[in-house]
Amino acid sequence: MNSFGTSFTFTSFGESHSRAIGGVLDGVPAGLHIDFALIREALDRRAGRLSAAGVSPRAKREPDEVEWLSGVLDGVTLGTPIAFLIRNRDARPEDYEWLKHSFRQGHADWTYQYKYGTRDWRGGGRASARETAARVVAGTIALQMLSERGISVHAELVQVGEATDPACFDEVIRAAGADGDSVGGIVRCCVTGLPAGLGEPVFDKLQSHLAFAMMSINACKGFDYGSGFEGVALRGSEANRVSGGMLGGISDGTMLSFRCVFKPTPTTARSLSALQSQITNPQSQITNPQSSVNSSLSEAHQSIISQSFRSDVCIAVRAVPVVESMAALVLCDFLSLSSNS
Amino acid sequence: MNSFGTSFTFTSFGESHSRAIGGVLDGVPAGLHIDFALIREALDRRAGRLSAAGVSPRAKREPDEVEWLSGVLDGVTLGTPIAFLIRNRDARPEDYEWLKHSFRQGHADWTYQYKYGTRDWRGGGRASARETAARVVAGTIALQMLSERGISVHAELVQVGEATDPACFDEVIRAAGADGDSVGGIVRCCVTGLPAGLGEPVFDKLQSHLAFAMMSINACKGFDYGSGFEGVALRGSEANRVSGGMLGGISDGTMLSFRCVFKPTPTTARSLSALQSQITNPQSQITNPQSSVNSSLSEAHQSIISQSFRSDVCIAVRAVPVVESMAALVLCDFLSLSSNS
Amino acid sequence: MNSFGTSFTFTSFGESHSRAIGGVLDGVPAGLHIDFALIREALDRRAGRLSAAGVSPRAKREPDEVEWLSGVLDGVTLGTPIAFLIRNRDARPEDYEWLKHSFRQGHADWTYQYKYGTRDWRGGGRASARETAARVVAGTIALQMLSERGISVHAELVQVGEATDPACFDEVIRAAGADGDSVGGIVRCCVTGLPAGLGEPVFDKLQSHLAFAMMSINACKGFDYGSGFEGVALRGSEANRVSGGMLGGISDGTMLSFRCVFKPTPTTARSLSALQSQITNPQSQITNPQSSVNSSLSEAHQSIISQSFRSDVCIAVRAVPVVESMAALVLCDFLSLSSNS
Amino acid sequence: MNSFGTSFTFTSFGESHSRAIGGVLDGVPAGLHIDFALIREALDRRAGRLSAAGVSPRAKREPDEVEWLSGVLDGVTLGTPIAFLIRNRDARPEDYEWLKHSFRQGHADWTYQYKYGTRDWRGGGRASARETAARVVAGTIALQMLSERGISVHAELVQVGEATDPACFDEVIRAAGADGDSVGGIVRCCVTGLPAGLGEPVFDKLQSHLAFAMMSINACKGFDYGSGFEGVALRGSEANRVSGGMLGGISDGTMLSFRCVFKPTPTTARSLSALQSQITNPQSQITNPQSSVNSSLSEAHQSIISQSFRSDVCIAVRAVPVVESMAALVLCDFLSLSSNS
Repeated sequence: MNSFGTSFTFTSFGESHSRAIGGVLDGVPAGLHIDFALIREALDRRAGRLSAAGVSPRAKREPDEVEWLSGVLDGVTLGTPIAFLIRNRDARPEDYEWLKHSFRQGHADWTYQYKYGTRDWRGGGRASARETAARVVAGTIALQMLSERGISVHAELVQVGEATDPACFDEVIRAAGADGDSVGGIVRCCVTGLPAGLGEPVFDKLQSHLAFAMMSINACKGFDYGSGFEGVALRGSEANRVSGGMLGGISDGTMLSFRCVFKPTPTTARSLSALQSQITNPQSQITNPQSSVNSSLSEAHQSIISQSFRSDVCIAVRAVPVVESMAALVLCDFLSLSSNS
Repeated sequence: MNSFGTSFTFTSFGESHSRAIGGVLDGVPAGLHIDFALIREALDRRAGRLSAAGVSPRAKREPDEVEWLSGVLDGVTLGTPIAFLIRNRDARPEDYEWLKHSFRQGHADWTYQYKYGTRDWRGGGRASARETAARVVAGTIALQMLSERGISVHAELVQVGEATDPACFDEVIRAAGADGDSVGGIVRCCVTGLPAGLGEPVFDKLQSHLAFAMMSINACKGFDYGSGFEGVALRGSEANRVSGGMLGGISDGTMLSFRCVFKPTPTTARSLSALQSQITNPQSQITNPQSSVNSSLSEAHQSIISQSFRSDVCIAVRAVPVVESMAALVLCDFLSLSSNS
Repeated sequence: MNSFGTSFTFTSFGESHSRAIGGVLDGVPAGLHIDFALIREALDRRAGRLSAAGVSPRAKREPDEVEWLSGVLDGVTLGTPIAFLIRNRDARPEDYEWLKHSFRQGHADWTYQYKYGTRDWRGGGRASARETAARVVAGTIALQMLSERGISVHAELVQVGEATDPACFDEVIRAAGADGDSVGGIVRCCVTGLPAGLGEPVFDKLQSHLAFAMMSINACKGFDYGSGFEGVALRGSEANRVSGGMLGGISDGTMLSFRCVFKPTPTTARSLSALQSQITNPQSQITNPQSSVNSSLSEAHQSIISQSFRSDVCIAVRAVPVVESMAALVLCDFLSLSSNS
Repeated sequence: MNSFGTSFTFTSFGESHSRAIGGVLDGVPAGLHIDFALIREALDRRAGRLSAAGVSPRAKREPDEVEWLSGVLDGVTLGTPIAFLIRNRDARPEDYEWLKHSFRQGHADWTYQYKYGTRDWRGGGRASARETAARVVAGTIALQMLSERGISVHAELVQVGEATDPACFDEVIRAAGADGDSVGGIVRCCVTGLPAGLGEPVFDKLQSHLAFAMMSINACKGFDYGSGFEGVALRGSEANRVSGGMLGGISDGTMLSFRCVFKPTPTTARSLSALQSQITNPQSQITNPQSSVNSSLSEAHQSIISQSFRSDVCIAVRAVPVVESMAALVLCDFLSLSSNS
């Protein structure tokens, strides 16, 4: 349930505000010199610390520090499971106290409460995008393994809102933020150097596993490859030219190319205002589970709402390294880069 | 590799022209009275036997007959694995003899040959869409199990080429066929009556498993749900209203809604003509693996090409019952409708 | 649940008296020329057709005929799943009709009825040793794959009752049969030519998987390797010399050696007589589920009991090829003899 | 590879002398109040801190402290993965430095070096019995879950060397220790309160999973249940009375009873002396991988050997809580005590 992969597996743990998040990566062969700088850089991208000036208030946050628990001796892998953790040092549970009795719209708050009867209301718990930091640590090790085999994985933002020109992305994000709103985005990922023959013909198609991996990223609402959704308007004579690197579920030796769409960040300044107005006017409260909020929230809590607003305007920006990481986990699993093969 | 699911599993076997295709469905509880008419009807839809007059030459083909090998006694399930087969009665390997030394563009012919060093060239082998007949048998049993729990799964064609008005679909398909070409389509699937709480928060999200299942269907190039790819242009304030029935990887009790895009059928009259002209003019032969063809094909083989043209113009039409079946397999797996729970 | 293995998998189906039993073997590479004679010989050993004259009435039975459904073309594997069936041609459900309302002692009759609410009372259903015929077909293909790598798997009976001298085995079996009783046995299996390094250090130890496989054989009550149970009386200085070919869960390149103990056949002439006397004297009927029997059985049914007695006196004899087959499935899974590695 | 279970899973990490060992337990429902005292007591038993006075020098060691990383809030489970670690605080790598270039007989040293090309020579790495401390933490949570369902798991030592009278165990252990040698033992485990119906008929038999789990414990050389190995000498009429709580792979509602045999501790004072004499007399060095030792060990290292001798004389003593823990993990997996069922 919290493990990913078959022979190259990653197990993730941690709530957004538990003592730590982290993971166990199993299947890395012995003898790999871990590139810690690469991991730091990917974590910074995921944390939004490398964003364009002014866009992300996260840029000033302290970096995530990885503590290596096992599987690594003097920076070199042992072939045993690599366990690591990242302390949740800046946990401020009081910021989220008001969420104890409310459900944010478009978030997993309600489904969690329903499923488990309880939940870690402190910032989303397992559903928080913070969990993806552990994926990035593991995925970057996988990326390094691929790189040593001459395989390169590169993702980038190709659409923000309706804009497809990267020069316009910052402007679109700024405009949405200025409206107290958020905006979606599309990430494209390309893999070069991948050998032909990866993937299984029927259920375990390469594209099935990539789709599975991408859809497991928070806020991802769709996956396509090759001609994809846009290809529906193509004739067969045209579409045949766009394989996306996989045919019959198996890599064909050409460049792999797939896309993921990310919805706008669900928590916006606007949605928080709506939440506040509901609290002020209890009679306006909607009983629908996805928008319900407990009217017992005091005004003190309300004032915290605006301060605790930490989400980004365009979550797709920070998803880029996560897409690369998940793709790398899938590919390493298929390549069976495990110690015993 | 040819099995699907965790506690409710389906194992598929058979090449398009081996003695039989079939499968083993494991996890069906004892005591289910199998609705054989429902299976027959779904198989007919998948086989294209129910298409609009004139569009599909398959309408006149003999129906697929299911032979039940185990797990069923007097039409009632025993709780043991249900094994079944469908004979490949109309196998005409000679129709495909010419493919022994050629690779069809946009097909898995080349990737299979590369991966396995050999392949069943008789009509696509495992890659043939014929394999999906076994999925439909198993999936329809799953649909029946869901139905007895008040859960309904319904898929339909919502786009063909650029047309989104169902009244225009036949016309678009006919036009493409008249041009010796093919056309893509989008299938939407809705699930009602599904309880909240299905799915796991991190990797085993409900949408991850649905995407995995759909991407395993032949010719499927993309999956999205809720606001999906079109939602990229929405602001967060709008997108929050379109959950697609899942939040944080878990069903929220509202209607599930997802889409799959199918590429145009790769083998078209046009692509076969191109193949023929290559054979006539060996110097025009392209060495790219995806379009290569062995020049040793005799004229006799060429004449077979046009006769053996069996593909449909819009494969999305026949994908509809396969989408329903795969969705049902995923949902039954999550519902753990297995005998021991 | 009815599948075995991870990357080299076997799925089994069929009740003892359904239309057929069979299986799907997935992971065999393309290009293997199947040795059908080897399969026939192993099936004959399992069926008891090769037993010493006079001991087994099964010697005269018709051989099991394997029908190959897919994955094999002209006797050569295609790399696709190999599906096969064995018809239950001599099914005589009427022989077992009386079991519809009774539970044989030491059999799975009662646990099945409890678990599934129904069961295929015709001869044990899935619990019948007949299911192992499918394992032998799959396992013999695995044995052939191992043999081509220079790995040999050989099992033999090393104890029957208290006798450890093979010259005495027939006599012990005959004596037990003459008493209307049955007797247990121990099978030892040795593997030579196995490379060092197979197995995983912690949970997926080689011996864990071998034990799992052996304990899944009907009537197997124990597994040990190396110094085993007898080694408890050894001092460490002595036991260190008996590794059994595995250390820390990993093969060490020396000969693998393990043992399986099989209980005496639970259905004996004596137990059937007891069953009969219970029927004659309903007041002697025991309510314990494991020995209960429905008193409504008519005398006509009772007369069938003695005729339908088909079990062997020492089931360990026929377990020998099943032990070899299961060991081979485990080893092929570890060797990842799958098509894509 | 380092994960155990299907729907209730445990992932283990850590070498004996890495920064920490620990694990991730996934599938514990929300709302369980963890009994930390029970975990402490089980860890103490596993560490040998509760042994009879004089037998174990470990009695004075500091207890293992569990640090809870996630999945638990105020002592109550959240339904999310429970991650924990135990620091290797008393790591003294210098004690093991001499092992860097030698392979202890009967240990996994050689197989690890062969398999991975490297190994954590500091005290056995992953092969060290220290890894079982993590299993005991996870297993004790599972035991608590079972206990709340009225299911009790109890293991105890039933044989040491040739002694089967518990009153003699201490004496036998003392005698072996006095000889500088070690001795094996048998642990019997009984489970009461288990509902009937657990287990699957063919491969996933309850006894198969129990055997798998037990054989994964360090030094375990065999598993049997019911009449077991001793039952080979029974006639069928007698053996039928000893089901061991499972028939046809499925629990029958009676008490479950199985045994595990543990070999004598491979590292003994005697084997270390032999190692020393080899070092003193390089010409006596044996080239066999299982007994080889690097002659470059200095006398300084030799003196460390006797001091660093930490193993117990009878490892079966400390295996008792590990047997209970592994049994509990298996049973919870079968009971699907996971949050979503």
